[in-house]
Amino acid sequence: MNDRTETAAAEPGETVTIAGWAHEIRDLGGIAFLIVRDRTGKIQVKFEKDAMDDDLVETGTEVSRESVVSVTGAVEEEERAPTGVEVVPESVEVLAPAEPGLPLDPSEKVDAELPTRLDNRTLDLRRDEAKAIFEIRAEILRAAREAFRELGGTEITTPKIVATGTEGGTELFPITYFGREAFMNQSPQLFKQLMVGSGLERVFEIGPIFRAEEHNTPRHLNEATSIDFESAFIDHEEAMDACEHVVRSAYEAVAENCESQLETLGYEGFEAPEEAFPRLTYEEAIERINATGELDEQLEWGDDLPTEGERALGADVDGHYFITDWPSEIKPFYIMDHDDGELSTGFDMMAPSMELVSGGQREHRHDHLVEGFEQQGLDPEAFEYYTKMFKYGMPPHAGWAIGAERLVMTMLDLPNIREAVLFPRDRQRLSP
Amino acid sequence: MNDRTETAAAEPGETVTIAGWAHEIRDLGGIAFLIVRDRTGKIQVKFEKDAMDDDLVETGTEVSRESVVSVTGAVEEEERAPTGVEVVPESVEVLAPAEPGLPLDPSEKVDAELPTRLDNRTLDLRRDEAKAIFEIRAEILRAAREAFRELGGTEITTPKIVATGTEGGTELFPITYFGREAFMNQSPQLFKQLMVGSGLERVFEIGPIFRAEEHNTPRHLNEATSIDFESAFIDHEEAMDACEHVVRSAYEAVAENCESQLETLGYEGFEAPEEAFPRLTYEEAIERINATGELDEQLEWGDDLPTEGERALGADVDGHYFITDWPSEIKPFYIMDHDDGELSTGFDMMAPSMELVSGGQREHRHDHLVEGFEQQGLDPEAFEYYTKMFKYGMPPHAGWAIGAERLVMTMLDLPNIREAVLFPRDRQRLSP
Repeated sequence: MNDRTETAAAEPGETVTIAGWAHEIRDLGGIAFLIVRDRTGKIQVKFEKDAMDDDLVETGTEVSRESVVSVTGAVEEEERAPTGVEVVPESVEVLAPAEPGLPLDPSEKVDAELPTRLDNRTLDLRRDEAKAIFEIRAEILRAAREAFRELGGTEITTPKIVATGTEGGTELFPITYFGREAFMNQSPQLFKQLMVGSGLERVFEIGPIFRAEEHNTPRHLNEATSIDFESAFIDHEEAMDACEHVVRSAYEAVAENCESQLETLGYEGFEAPEEAFPRLTYEEAIERINATGELDEQLEWGDDLPTEGERALGADVDGHYFITDWPSEIKPFYIMDHDDGELSTGFDMMAPSMELVSGGQREHRHDHLVEGFEQQGLDPEAFEYYTKMFKYGMPPHAGWAIGAERLVMTMLDLPNIREAVLFPRDRQRLSP
Repeated sequence: MNDRTETAAAEPGETVTIAGWAHEIRDLGGIAFLIVRDRTGKIQVKFEKDAMDDDLVETGTEVSRESVVSVTGAVEEEERAPTGVEVVPESVEVLAPAEPGLPLDPSEKVDAELPTRLDNRTLDLRRDEAKAIFEIRAEILRAAREAFRELGGTEITTPKIVATGTEGGTELFPITYFGREAFMNQSPQLFKQLMVGSGLERVFEIGPIFRAEEHNTPRHLNEATSIDFESAFIDHEEAMDACEHVVRSAYEAVAENCESQLETLGYEGFEAPEEAFPRLTYEEAIERINATGELDEQLEWGDDLPTEGERALGADVDGHYFITDWPSEIKPFYIMDHDDGELSTGFDMMAPSMELVSGGQREHRHDHLVEGFEQQGLDPEAFEYYTKMFKYGMPPHAGWAIGAERLVMTMLDLPNIREAVLFPRDRQRLSP
């Protein structure tokens, strides 16, 4: 369809062929309008019943909603038309008819529940709002990769089918791999670390991760997209700088390049965060949460932060912030401790009431790492492909991972993470 | 390590701290050189034994190869040094010692076999050649995404865990999903089609695909990266145009931005293809293969093209080319036939002796599609989540998929596809 003109590009005075969906038909008696929708917008096609061929009028005004049509005709100025122009049709063709009784109405005259929308994503993404979310999501991924390249990162692809996982077997999906037991990878953690020890030094990956956690909440997925970064020769502070750069870049790109999508979603004054993200220590975080008085019981040093505590602190800080210097025992064994051994270099980034990023400086000393595996109850032998490389000059390094869907969700203030993924996977949902 | 200077940025007259790997030590008696390597290059550190502190000299000249070291010192011009400068050290610290007896020597004095290299990718990617391949791979992915955006494509992410696969069960890896049977997805085909029926219209995805094929060849992988494109309102000819644009853009980007990597790999005069890719019909392809006289038996209409035939034709055409108008029966059922029903709109792109791309215009007519599933012996009910959307206005559309590793392999003329993937997955290899 080389000769197709997108509706937004149809200029008065031209004869064009447009193609799109029959969004709406308004029959006023002697005159009728067919509104054709494509990804660039909508355009009005005018049928003057007495002045036009009967077949033409019938095809154009009796076509069912959401059928795909192609219309050839002259574009004319018409100030009463929604876009200021209309098409006077010479021919109309139905390229793909739609059955009546759509499970979901893209023109939104009937509100649909999330499960119905997820079952019918094709129709759901004909709605401007749903489409806008995924256009913004694409822009976030583009901007994140560009930010990584500004930092000198090399994009890598690591395997999703693996022999072992760092969290043991409970949170892994088992897979049968040519008669052998294998798993879907829950994180590129080990592989990206193997690559910072290589000549690449600084790497990033945006790809799927798989977690067999039995969560069933508005903010957990069993298949998600992880935005991973890892770099040799940086510490946890520099890792946080890099994280802030990537997140800020994503916000800036959306503010700059997604104006119409933000408008569609009803955002006024969407702005990228300007201030540096505050870095609170875990101890300060506990104190501030306790000071809000929002929790029934005061938190004590060593407690993990409960969801309500995160919410209270998020409301208090009112913006992105890091929590640093966690008790070592709360953080994974592959995170480096500070010299005292009590505190970890691990950090979380909150956005602001939900964990968005988790990272830290990594343990690069072979013997400490192997000890960590043992203390975790994991068999170091099973991870030898990984630990072995720490014997051959593994530089100090740090990194982090952002949940891409959480980034979209928190940026756009979506009520459910499933709004940020085309075809979510959760305990119940495996299809489409 | 905010104060670290990368070796390529070390300027004479400065005092710098460099950090990297002990690439080589040359002890000439009264004087010794430590070559430190980082991702930007190598630099010489000079030890004058009599004029320097004994501990300093000992640390810097007795450190084992591939240990990670940090050196602080003055950068001085030295025309006999490989890069024209050297560092006169004030302090040397071993950040991470390497055990002697490396399984693989990054300075390449000993050639290693591919399996050893794959077992030790961390060390392997300290070699300039291996590193160059993956830097080029990253550039190819960047350029492909940019080309897709030039075409108006929106990046999407589709699920890798699915309930069903188009090829039936034999080529799928089974997975246990919360007690239910599921599979690793072998292609985003169905999902990207669902999205061209949405308001996005034109989409792309670069992500992993999983095939349980029992191939064991230098050009097959069981986990690969697929570069997928799909667009509403285009036919197979326009899909080929888009394909050519993306592949050409990748070549151009590598030619422009990867000069040093190409030099490392020994390419002289690497050039992006300038001419339009010829489009041969299947019938012409058969005739030309037969005319080469390379096959023992002449091919007949309806035969699939054997590997030797592809090779002979590739040598004959000597560049990228498409094969179009295949017999319908050879192509998948979801590809649209030409009007006569005998010939398919499916196409392959060859590069030049190996299939790189497969695509076509899709069957968008609901009843034909359901019939296709039945003829294929697949239960249309199992795919209802997909076929149902074809009842609600599915536009004519076309698309294709490029194997990313094959693109890297053919572009760089690599002997084995495993050279183009960091951690390959094949029938034998599941780790690292």
